[in-house]
Amino acid sequence: MSTTAVSSAISYARDHKQRFLDELKDLLRIPSVSTDPDRKGDVRKAAEVVATDLERIGFENVEVIPTQGHPLVYADWLHAAGKPTALCYAHFDVQPAEPLDEWKSPPFIDDDAYAVKPEEQAVKKNWTSPAERDNNIYARGAVDDKGQLWMQMKAFESLFKSNGGKLPVNVRVLFEGEEEVGGESIEEYVKKNANTGKLKCDFALVTDTELFAPDLPTLCVGLRGLVYTEIEAQGAKVDLHSGVYGGAAPNAIFGLIEIVSKLKDDNGKVLIPGFYDAVQKPTDDELKAWERLPFNEEEYRKAEVGSDVLTGEPGYSVIYRTWARPTLEVHGIVGGFIAPGAKTVIPARASAKVSMRLVPNQDADDIFKKYSDYVKKITPKGIKTSIKIHSKGPACVVNTDNPYARAAVEAMHEIFKKDTVYIRSGGSIPIVTQFDKDLKVPSIMMGMGLPDDNLHAPNEKFHIPNFHRGIESIIRFFQILGGE
Amino acid sequence: MSTTAVSSAISYARDHKQRFLDELKDLLRIPSVSTDPDRKGDVRKAAEVVATDLERIGFENVEVIPTQGHPLVYADWLHAAGKPTALCYAHFDVQPAEPLDEWKSPPFIDDDAYAVKPEEQAVKKNWTSPAERDNNIYARGAVDDKGQLWMQMKAFESLFKSNGGKLPVNVRVLFEGEEEVGGESIEEYVKKNANTGKLKCDFALVTDTELFAPDLPTLCVGLRGLVYTEIEAQGAKVDLHSGVYGGAAPNAIFGLIEIVSKLKDDNGKVLIPGFYDAVQKPTDDELKAWERLPFNEEEYRKAEVGSDVLTGEPGYSVIYRTWARPTLEVHGIVGGFIAPGAKTVIPARASAKVSMRLVPNQDADDIFKKYSDYVKKITPKGIKTSIKIHSKGPACVVNTDNPYARAAVEAMHEIFKKDTVYIRSGGSIPIVTQFDKDLKVPSIMMGMGLPDDNLHAPNEKFHIPNFHRGIESIIRFFQILGGE
Repeated sequence: MSTTAVSSAISYARDHKQRFLDELKDLLRIPSVSTDPDRKGDVRKAAEVVATDLERIGFENVEVIPTQGHPLVYADWLHAAGKPTALCYAHFDVQPAEPLDEWKSPPFIDDDAYAVKPEEQAVKKNWTSPAERDNNIYARGAVDDKGQLWMQMKAFESLFKSNGGKLPVNVRVLFEGEEEVGGESIEEYVKKNANTGKLKCDFALVTDTELFAPDLPTLCVGLRGLVYTEIEAQGAKVDLHSGVYGGAAPNAIFGLIEIVSKLKDDNGKVLIPGFYDAVQKPTDDELKAWERLPFNEEEYRKAEVGSDVLTGEPGYSVIYRTWARPTLEVHGIVGGFIAPGAKTVIPARASAKVSMRLVPNQDADDIFKKYSDYVKKITPKGIKTSIKIHSKGPACVVNTDNPYARAAVEAMHEIFKKDTVYIRSGGSIPIVTQFDKDLKVPSIMMGMGLPDDNLHAPNEKFHIPNFHRGIESIIRFFQILGGE
Repeated sequence: MSTTAVSSAISYARDHKQRFLDELKDLLRIPSVSTDPDRKGDVRKAAEVVATDLERIGFENVEVIPTQGHPLVYADWLHAAGKPTALCYAHFDVQPAEPLDEWKSPPFIDDDAYAVKPEEQAVKKNWTSPAERDNNIYARGAVDDKGQLWMQMKAFESLFKSNGGKLPVNVRVLFEGEEEVGGESIEEYVKKNANTGKLKCDFALVTDTELFAPDLPTLCVGLRGLVYTEIEAQGAKVDLHSGVYGGAAPNAIFGLIEIVSKLKDDNGKVLIPGFYDAVQKPTDDELKAWERLPFNEEEYRKAEVGSDVLTGEPGYSVIYRTWARPTLEVHGIVGGFIAPGAKTVIPARASAKVSMRLVPNQDADDIFKKYSDYVKKITPKGIKTSIKIHSKGPACVVNTDNPYARAAVEAMHEIFKKDTVYIRSGGSIPIVTQFDKDLKVPSIMMGMGLPDDNLHAPNEKFHIPNFHRGIESIIRFFQILGGE
């Protein structure tokens, strides 16, 4: 390791901490909500901001690639002859900020950065706190994933600027703007370029996961898959008076409720026939390692979940249930009269968003078919159902027996002064599965989020020291791989 | 019967048909939606329009009575010495017009009469038809109940104007603006004045029901009661990421769905313990009369309900189920992410509006208690529920062995040239029960709606010939009671 180079890139990062954070805030100000058609321009704007900075810091071949959906950003620097090539992934789109009234500071940093609809203006009264507080930056996308995308950017900048415009390894950057809506465009792009050489690399770096606990360096080595659907139920042709027709007309909400209530039992066991057939268990070594992780179920229940009890399949630990058991959730439901007050209507229509998280060896198409067949079978008489699919992708487990994982562990040891733990995530990053399948490369999932960062929820945050430790860990990771 | 008087009042009504209809349209233009706090001024405006016309046509002691909720309108004319006294009831409030996009003409007659919210402006594109078409007037409240209130008004006017400012009987008018939200204020007012003499009368006339079939004169002699509630469910403290927490955190929608799905079974049987205990069966004579009514189940299913099958308890006819069996419906449900697209959230909160229709001898308080206890008992672990009550009132059956019912039958026979049928309604008019209980008078429910008038649904209508036949039937009803 060249101590000069190290201290020079790390020093650069340390000297520019405040600017790096200010730049991140600017990126967070863009409401790049990929699921909202009205925000299409904002997702594009986020892509352009990232592309502009890639160009500025020293990347070549910077492209904002148009797609059927939101654009991709590509860039490369391939002049480290004989050194490995990294494919660096992160995403610049974010989840919706709703429910807006539960935020304590504006979800997009500034009060006016997000065009709150007229009827929602009242929610702003709760946004009385500053975005930066208690050493955290609060914003939608702070940790998922703009903050972690910007860690990569600023590690690249520190490496370029402290070493005469050179990186210690070859780097391809591929960032997307559709991660929160299924990532169709990147999937297509990777498939198309799997054999063109455009994405040729030795490994992928993915910064979209979290530390198992504060100050505990963590590599994520497994992800659940996801099948996300929407069930629409129709009963009578129009809404009917419940006095006149109650007792004779089918009720779309009841129909939908009957269906959804039969999807899993009180214990969280999914009732779709064959749902668990292909489930592959974790190895005994993995299970033993999980038992050694610092995890306090009572603390988790209180501080993170905030409920009276935890739920889920009996006989499995919380970690096992959330990382390695498939689950089914309903994310939203709506039907009938939902304004304040009372209306005695038998609703004609209702819909629910339902998803399943998959574990290794479950096939997403197979599960969707089993689910659709079952929904059809349990649809009560008088009700018609149709199922829309929003996204689907399988689970994956990554191999860690390679120089890239070893370099990541070494880099984080230097920065955190602690041994790395290997965890899985209950979430889904379909691109990791695809890198494995189409590009035949392992992914290094080096994430700096914290378990209480409120991903996908109000008051999402990123712990500012973790932002900086992430930059330094990535700097060292590349330097180690480059032999420095 | 004084033929001169008859032909004179009826002639007056026939001479002013167009003006009567135009006036009704003006009343329909006022969006007096009683459940919507933003429409409070409109409900008041409707009250004032009615009061002004009562004054104009010849009533005395006209009052718009302020209440905790929406105002009542009172008026009287008590100079028919020795003749019976009628208490005439109708309501000038209406149901919400939502879903707005399913209307073919503006729900309040004119495009701009209803301040459609900015995000809903697009619904207006469907409002391409005129309000008056195929001899019907289409508007929210056309038949329920402004059109039927205006039948009374115009019968009074015709009687006053054709007979030197005199009515054939004594009349008290008591109209309300809270029928669609539980009618608390009129309940209190009637209770308070039960013994003051202010509401002293021999019978009540209620025009808020329908003809069993077109051209078939009908008296409604039974109503179901109603208990309308809202269940709110809470799981985790905030919305959580379904990847990270799926398998461990309680889901408020699932909790709510589990509860509601256990309220009744697939056959429509309500599962609340003791729910059917007090149910009183109709008499054998009544059941036999119902079997003779012209009712085509297949036609009803297709034209009115518009579903593949009819639902409800096996072993009971459609008429029995909707008139004389208690039922339970869910009117609205909402929770989690309901915008377009996908959001992988475990929702913290969800709520459902649930009501029960009651039949004679079921006590509303008792049923609410049984319901609340049951909901508490079936609330799954990890979920907290609270129940709000929107309204409650018992069912009632009215005695028809009195001169008022006989006069109604005779009046309708003259106008329709057919014998009257006695029916019940599955709906609820709590005030009828109260007239019986507090004022000890029978109610004559003489309604002119039609089964396909889309009560509480989009494209509510009133058949214009029925509006005029209603006016004439009421004129003759009062004349017969006055001995003319």
